[in-house]
Amino acid sequence: MIRRYDFGMPMETGAVVETVSPSQGDVPFFTVDKLGPRFSLALGADDVIFGLGENVRGINKRGHIYRSWNSDEFAHHENTRSLYASHNFLLFYGEDKLFGAFFDDPGALEFDLGYTDARQAVITSENGDLSLYIIQGDSLTDIVEQFRKIIGVSYIPPKWAFGYIQSRWGYASDAELRKVVKEHRERHIPLDGVCVDIDYMQDYKDFTWKPESFPDMTQLNQDMKQEHIRLIPIIDAGVKEQEGYFLYDEGVEKGYFCKKEDGSNFIGAVWPGRSLFPDFLNDDARRWFGEKYRLLLETGIEGFWNDMNEPALFYTPEGLEKAFDEAEKARGQNLGIDAFFALKDIFGQVANKPEDYRSFWHDFGGKKVRHDKVHNLYGYFMTRSAAEGMEAYNPDKRHLLFSRASYVGAHRYGGVWQGDNTSWWSHLLMNLKMLPSLNMCGFMYTGADLGGFSNNTTEDLLLRWLQLGVFTPLMRNHAALGTREQEIYRFGMQEDMKNILTVRYALLPYLYSEFMKATLGGKCMFRPLAFDYPGDKRALRVEDQVMLGSECMIAPVYEQNARGRYVYLPEDMLLVRFRSAADYDLVPMEKGNHWIDLQLNEMPLFIRKGCIIPLSRGGEWVDDVDFRSLTMLGWADEAAYALYDDDGMGKNYDLEKNTRVITLRGGEAVGDGLTLKNAVLKA
Amino acid sequence: MIRRYDFGMPMETGAVVETVSPSQGDVPFFTVDKLGPRFSLALGADDVIFGLGENVRGINKRGHIYRSWNSDEFAHHENTRSLYASHNFLLFYGEDKLFGAFFDDPGALEFDLGYTDARQAVITSENGDLSLYIIQGDSLTDIVEQFRKIIGVSYIPPKWAFGYIQSRWGYASDAELRKVVKEHRERHIPLDGVCVDIDYMQDYKDFTWKPESFPDMTQLNQDMKQEHIRLIPIIDAGVKEQEGYFLYDEGVEKGYFCKKEDGSNFIGAVWPGRSLFPDFLNDDARRWFGEKYRLLLETGIEGFWNDMNEPALFYTPEGLEKAFDEAEKARGQNLGIDAFFALKDIFGQVANKPEDYRSFWHDFGGKKVRHDKVHNLYGYFMTRSAAEGMEAYNPDKRHLLFSRASYVGAHRYGGVWQGDNTSWWSHLLMNLKMLPSLNMCGFMYTGADLGGFSNNTTEDLLLRWLQLGVFTPLMRNHAALGTREQEIYRFGMQEDMKNILTVRYALLPYLYSEFMKATLGGKCMFRPLAFDYPGDKRALRVEDQVMLGSECMIAPVYEQNARGRYVYLPEDMLLVRFRSAADYDLVPMEKGNHWIDLQLNEMPLFIRKGCIIPLSRGGEWVDDVDFRSLTMLGWADEAAYALYDDDGMGKNYDLEKNTRVITLRGGEAVGDGLTLKNAVLKA
Repeated sequence: MIRRYDFGMPMETGAVVETVSPSQGDVPFFTVDKLGPRFSLALGADDVIFGLGENVRGINKRGHIYRSWNSDEFAHHENTRSLYASHNFLLFYGEDKLFGAFFDDPGALEFDLGYTDARQAVITSENGDLSLYIIQGDSLTDIVEQFRKIIGVSYIPPKWAFGYIQSRWGYASDAELRKVVKEHRERHIPLDGVCVDIDYMQDYKDFTWKPESFPDMTQLNQDMKQEHIRLIPIIDAGVKEQEGYFLYDEGVEKGYFCKKEDGSNFIGAVWPGRSLFPDFLNDDARRWFGEKYRLLLETGIEGFWNDMNEPALFYTPEGLEKAFDEAEKARGQNLGIDAFFALKDIFGQVANKPEDYRSFWHDFGGKKVRHDKVHNLYGYFMTRSAAEGMEAYNPDKRHLLFSRASYVGAHRYGGVWQGDNTSWWSHLLMNLKMLPSLNMCGFMYTGADLGGFSNNTTEDLLLRWLQLGVFTPLMRNHAALGTREQEIYRFGMQEDMKNILTVRYALLPYLYSEFMKATLGGKCMFRPLAFDYPGDKRALRVEDQVMLGSECMIAPVYEQNARGRYVYLPEDMLLVRFRSAADYDLVPMEKGNHWIDLQLNEMPLFIRKGCIIPLSRGGEWVDDVDFRSLTMLGWADEAAYALYDDDGMGKNYDLEKNTRVITLRGGEAVGDGLTLKNAVLKA
Repeated sequence: MIRRYDFGMPMETGAVVETVSPSQGDVPFFTVDKLGPRFSLALGADDVIFGLGENVRGINKRGHIYRSWNSDEFAHHENTRSLYASHNFLLFYGEDKLFGAFFDDPGALEFDLGYTDARQAVITSENGDLSLYIIQGDSLTDIVEQFRKIIGVSYIPPKWAFGYIQSRWGYASDAELRKVVKEHRERHIPLDGVCVDIDYMQDYKDFTWKPESFPDMTQLNQDMKQEHIRLIPIIDAGVKEQEGYFLYDEGVEKGYFCKKEDGSNFIGAVWPGRSLFPDFLNDDARRWFGEKYRLLLETGIEGFWNDMNEPALFYTPEGLEKAFDEAEKARGQNLGIDAFFALKDIFGQVANKPEDYRSFWHDFGGKKVRHDKVHNLYGYFMTRSAAEGMEAYNPDKRHLLFSRASYVGAHRYGGVWQGDNTSWWSHLLMNLKMLPSLNMCGFMYTGADLGGFSNNTTEDLLLRWLQLGVFTPLMRNHAALGTREQEIYRFGMQEDMKNILTVRYALLPYLYSEFMKATLGGKCMFRPLAFDYPGDKRALRVEDQVMLGSECMIAPVYEQNARGRYVYLPEDMLLVRFRSAADYDLVPMEKGNHWIDLQLNEMPLFIRKGCIIPLSRGGEWVDDVDFRSLTMLGWADEAAYALYDDDGMGKNYDLEKNTRVITLRGGEAVGDGLTLKNAVLKA
């Protein structure tokens, strides 16, 4: 049951697509202080809180303060309050409570979840204009499915986007991209795509490329496709201020950029220097920008990533001037320590300044709305712009699209990567924890920058991170300019890394099937253990294992120098200890606590007893994988698996032929139109 | 066997106090590139590296790059390379290697331990002037004991310093300190000391106090001692530039401050603003400064903490001017993105600038030495200054002394806290990992800022951190100005916290005994499991449990929202699950992997099978604890424990009566002059 409660004048965010009429009367569970409004809730000693999508800390969010305010924070740590996305859905779970709450509020929201007072959750809206949805149901799973239903079916990428993608801020030419591909292909390291970061653009101008470095983009794309590779260019939110640049000229002429209160165009500096910001919240501007993706689609591009769309602001001219003034004033004085500390931060804090976000305006639904009131929608509506543009270009084809900033609603238009991260072991674990939280909020196509974006990775970190990336729909190795080169072939352990990739490609029939079934059915592909084992008190607090699909559980190694890890099995499971697609052990294990030996080149997958999953022979790119010739793995006497597959490009998801049931009976695995081997252990 | 190899002109650091004559010929194990010098060593896939004292990352240091360069880094994380201390001792341990290496080099040293190349360790000296000691022995324990022998016996604090200490940057008056003590005493929260941070001083001037806030320091100390409390004031390295301030006037007159190349006094800004830095490396200057501690000792003070002695430099006037110039120059320009990023850091990087550390000089052993060549000695020689000053004041009495910056050698003069940390769960775990590493390097009296120094703590974090702090010789709750008030009585869970403190006081006879035996014997009180179980491959890689004394192992909970943890028992052990000194479970457990339930108010201690340890009734301050009336805990049929105790104040450590052997035989615990109860489980 879903009830909606409105406060102030809620915005039309489009997060919810089903009609839920506003309820009158008191909000259940929360005490509401209308000044704010502020929503309070007493927490029992053992209550658990799930949700909040892309965020720091645990799968259980209790004990920290979070702030929904899309922010560019690459060096985030356990004390960070805001990341790149705002996903305001929570699940409260305890002896006397079982409900979900979605705060549809595109401005700043603070979630004090037992931080200030361990026994209380307090959620405060800065805008005061929001719809609160309270969702009750039989179980955590049921509540999430109800929520997913009202927010609409999640974005589905093409099948090739489940391949391994290599990326780096710094790939700057046709020749360099070809070389990256060649290095992979020569070593038979599987690969399906290469992300191209800001360096391909002419002076960081969207929808342009450097003619000297990319003399023939169409030819390049054709050649890449011969190699079964797609290039995936970046598009940034900011548009360079430069007369003669078509995007700037058109946008200015049509009035499609965000404006200051006096009606003049708002200027902020990002990569191209002084830039203007398309008003994606304005339908006409959004359509106009979205159509521009065609300029690259026409060269053979089939997917994009949208970046800097919190939007990040390095500075505004006004903010910078003010900082200069303050510095100059400080110079004249004999600086006390407090004054010095203030000076230290003058230029450091000129980026992403709250006052700058209050200094520009949108034309949203025909109304002038100050940016900070709708801040968290900006990336979402940029994603929508791109998705609509690509759909207009080719309505029958799926395109790849993922974004840095997001809000619930964006999940229908594209995926997200988990934001710019750092080459830290703690971020590997955070990567795992975000997966179920993101799924709850509708974000299904997701993954982290494997190996870590900023700072230098080490080869053991990359290897272990790939062992988690094997399971994430988006599997991308990405690194920042100036950091150690992070392509697999740079490392001594490249053979081990390649072997781990073979596991990814061998598991593709299962991973794609589970992704599609969960997405089409409005379910979670990744779940906290508590979803599947609601009565199990140990499972409730497991923070480093998550359920994957209906049959499996994953538990990666995330500690440096470790040669194994502890695992809690909430039921009997089969451990598959992979070294490669062709080299693995099958170890039946009983419910309970276990230490699992896992050498650097080994990664575990757990299959529930009584379940079976398909393993293909793998391949060097997605289309090279034979989804019809499969070896069934498991620990069961009788079992069935519903395998979903489709053409990977079109949108006919409901065709009957897309689902084939594989049954195991009498020691034989059988499925229509499939060649099956049975490697299932007898129970 | 210890061999010494000299490179360049090694400094007389005083780290090593026994004579080890230089060897000729090639250094064993390492390939030496004399240009540098740079020491290289191939690492086997499973080699482990211990050591490096106060540092980030694991007990096993492999896989990161560390830089010995004492640095003020309160928000350190897994990517940090330098902390407050430089402890250049490592243990290499693998199939073909078992040796220790001590790099006695007071300048910058880089330890690339399988970071750039996973298969290689490379250690580079920036100075080029060093003695390298290579230590071979039968075991890890043997090698460490040989090392500890040549660096001399570690500092021993008075017994009261093993009590609980409350601290906060911000305690600013006589009245406030009395109130903190009163709040503890009223609630019967045990307490032995209160640290007083910079706020007691007059304008942050060393050896002064604000007369309006501390009208009678002698009376205050007397009253505090009535309450069994010692006040522990801070002393900072920098001396305020102010004519008429005795310390400044004397130091200038005698030429005791560090100088620039032209002979004028070096100025750097710290808390008092423009400050001068005593040249602790100059014997006369060090003696002069050390004698000043008398000014507080005479009021009844019995201990100090020395801070800011890396030395931290907020800025130098020259550095700040340069930053202003650069900012001004930038103002005139149309800033590109690179130029803007440079501008962002202009004032942020004005602190602790490498070039500032190259701009002043010491008079060291009669020679003029540039600071960067001996940077890591500065805090060490300040500690020595204080220790010698206090010894001169009262040679027969132990004083409390601990420092932020240190170098091997300083361990003979004082303890260290683990530097300014942050209220992060990851720092709780780091706290644990540093304990054995610090012990190896001679630092025995140590502990972390419990609850975390910077940022707001949460009550569950403080509670769990106290559960580790129970075992650390220095047990101090400390927090920074502007953060949440962190005294135990501020929190809803104060009863649980108080109960945890009762465990500390009940364990004092054991903890003090183990500290003293280890310190006097040149052994480690805290050890990696590998020291005690050399053949055990699992034990080798355990990063979240450490051996405590000869009888115990500790394994704190360090994850938020956890209700237990995994523990690996390398042999049969008895779990003592403490809720308070009077409320605990005894659970015999077999060697192997276990999950242990531990509610928020519960903490574990593991006693080796066959061992017994004493538990007292506890008390509200150290002298309130009866060290003679004890309950023996353990799981054994026959066992013996050697209990060390002394008057806690004097230096007659070798008296025969200090050690009493407690034996368990035929179900009875017996020890001369002791009243013993037997709560030992039969094996």
